[in-house]
Amino acid sequence: MKIIILKEKLAKGLSIVEKITGRNLTLPILNNVLISTEDNSLRLSTTDLELGISYWGLAKVEEKGEITIPVRTLSGFVSLLGEEKITIESKEKTLYLKGENYKTQIKGLDSKDFPIIPEVVSDNWIEFDAISFCRGIAQVMDFCALTQSRPELSGIYFSFQKNIAKIVATDSFRLAEKTIVLDGAMNGINNSQSFILPRNAVRELVNIFSEHNGKIKFYFSPSQVMIESYIDETQNPQARLVSRLIEGEYPDYEAVIPKEFKTQIVLPKEEFMSQIKIASLFSGRTNEVKLVISPKKGNVLISSQSVDLGETESKMAIEAKGDDVEISFNYKFLYEGLNQMRSEKIMLNLNGQDGPGVLKPSDDSNYLYVIMPIKAS
Amino acid sequence: MKIIILKEKLAKGLSIVEKITGRNLTLPILNNVLISTEDNSLRLSTTDLELGISYWGLAKVEEKGEITIPVRTLSGFVSLLGEEKITIESKEKTLYLKGENYKTQIKGLDSKDFPIIPEVVSDNWIEFDAISFCRGIAQVMDFCALTQSRPELSGIYFSFQKNIAKIVATDSFRLAEKTIVLDGAMNGINNSQSFILPRNAVRELVNIFSEHNGKIKFYFSPSQVMIESYIDETQNPQARLVSRLIEGEYPDYEAVIPKEFKTQIVLPKEEFMSQIKIASLFSGRTNEVKLVISPKKGNVLISSQSVDLGETESKMAIEAKGDDVEISFNYKFLYEGLNQMRSEKIMLNLNGQDGPGVLKPSDDSNYLYVIMPIKAS
Repeated sequence: MKIIILKEKLAKGLSIVEKITGRNLTLPILNNVLISTEDNSLRLSTTDLELGISYWGLAKVEEKGEITIPVRTLSGFVSLLGEEKITIESKEKTLYLKGENYKTQIKGLDSKDFPIIPEVVSDNWIEFDAISFCRGIAQVMDFCALTQSRPELSGIYFSFQKNIAKIVATDSFRLAEKTIVLDGAMNGINNSQSFILPRNAVRELVNIFSEHNGKIKFYFSPSQVMIESYIDETQNPQARLVSRLIEGEYPDYEAVIPKEFKTQIVLPKEEFMSQIKIASLFSGRTNEVKLVISPKKGNVLISSQSVDLGETESKMAIEAKGDDVEISFNYKFLYEGLNQMRSEKIMLNLNGQDGPGVLKPSDDSNYLYVIMPIKAS
Repeated sequence: MKIIILKEKLAKGLSIVEKITGRNLTLPILNNVLISTEDNSLRLSTTDLELGISYWGLAKVEEKGEITIPVRTLSGFVSLLGEEKITIESKEKTLYLKGENYKTQIKGLDSKDFPIIPEVVSDNWIEFDAISFCRGIAQVMDFCALTQSRPELSGIYFSFQKNIAKIVATDSFRLAEKTIVLDGAMNGINNSQSFILPRNAVRELVNIFSEHNGKIKFYFSPSQVMIESYIDETQNPQARLVSRLIEGEYPDYEAVIPKEFKTQIVLPKEEFMSQIKIASLFSGRTNEVKLVISPKKGNVLISSQSVDLGETESKMAIEAKGDDVEISFNYKFLYEGLNQMRSEKIMLNLNGQDGPGVLKPSDDSNYLYVIMPIKAS
């Protein structure tokens, strides 16, 4: 193999593919990147056996070939170079890099030993605007379960219904739902298509595509998805993510979202968040923060107490209607939900002290956060 | 005790005194701040038994008194408040805080149990401009020894000679010396006064005073120093640090600094640092980076190799005179020294492959960094 490539392109590609490497200690080749030539491109590929990522960068290909070398070494090296052309050659299992003022050798492994990353060949696909889709995913992805005790909750649920997609995550203490209106092209997607994507795959999806100006395309098969972006207006892929899906049935989450409420409140978001933070200091091991809501007085008392540290209570003016209610939440769940909402005011809807609370941004009906209270003992 | 104080003053004071708390698990009261009234000020004090820090903030004192409470709880709470006046009251062992929209109680301990921080009462003192003095200390403080095997090297050495002060740190692999011209007032300081200040004290000194516009005053006693800043033009202290000194004789470090050199080089600092970083990737466990300096060719080759990873070599143009030399350094020691110099060009002076190298900024004769080479085996 012999190619010439701009430092910038190589560094960009490596930064995208390297993130999933380094987790596997038993199979060292998974810490490597497979470098190969494809037409007039250099292709970089990595995998952790669950996920595969590829990136294509335009290069002058003087001699075809492939090699696999430790990605962190190459990436660390390339990131320190100045803006210039790099000449890359492979001879047997060594990669040679040459620039104006340096010559470097990096030891690799035989590319035959690199695991094959399957492609998804399917006529079922759908297109999204990359930036707004990734932004929507980022609003829910942190709320899936971190344990594997219920595998289906450890992923993010995507469900297609007519002209909308719903993206949902829950750890059974709180649930976030983002609705996205489908306005891109699609093929072979039917009304009840849904799948559960592992959290790692979703995180990489956001890492790779969240700044891509343009479309990304999802290809579906029964057990995998493949997501691709393209170089400018061409059909040539720029970056590709392939992931397995999580098997199993996602719970009927819509059943737990109440539709009617006994108390409805509108709160200033920033002030509410800083009052919660203050109360969190005295919330002790249960993280319990109490809200005493009085629509008549037009205020909420936010309080917490700890046997060891002390106690605090603050008052905040609100707009509210309906019943008085006293309800306790884990401050972290409350805070993290609010933190994903971008509007100045938020709506908090309640059904007594034991029912789930529902948070919504006041100016965005496409986002919803449901939170279970800490029940009075 | 009852006082009224601005949030800003209290938060500032707490941020200064809290840094040395939380290290002691056997004596919980050391995690506390002693809050006391003094004339028209609130005084905050903390100690870790080696160091003591106090801070004075103007306050409306309605009732004298003192109490000690967990500093992190108070500091976390105060930092979250809006800009406003805080009413603080102590009753028995509880502190009550009240503002416009909140009321809070924090549980404390009896102030009688708080360790006494000794003051240094001495006629021996010297004044420095706080900002430039702290900047000078910061250039050497990271280079003292981190182990206690030679206690005198675990501190920073201050030595007064006629009209200059020298500040020195070494871990026996490298040594940094900063010279400061004394232009402030002083009293009772003689020509050969010197002391060794523990690293923690030096770090706090820089934390506390590095942004203080004005003078700081050092008071000496045989076993302690006290450093103070003052409120504006008054003689009322604003912040105070008291520290024990390290006993023992500092080594005669000046004897190891060569005065004449066989090879003298001038290098562009940034480029040299990035070449060292590149070479560090292949330097292996010894951190060894080799320099091959040729004054005749006007260049230096910077190289490293690792059995596992590969090897690299880069070339950089330099100005140099004297003998050719091949010399190896621990890249970390080289890099960290360069990182403390602010000039575009630096001088590297050498005496063969086994003698110490001396680095200096080309435009600042008040800073010096000596580094031992890795001897050829």
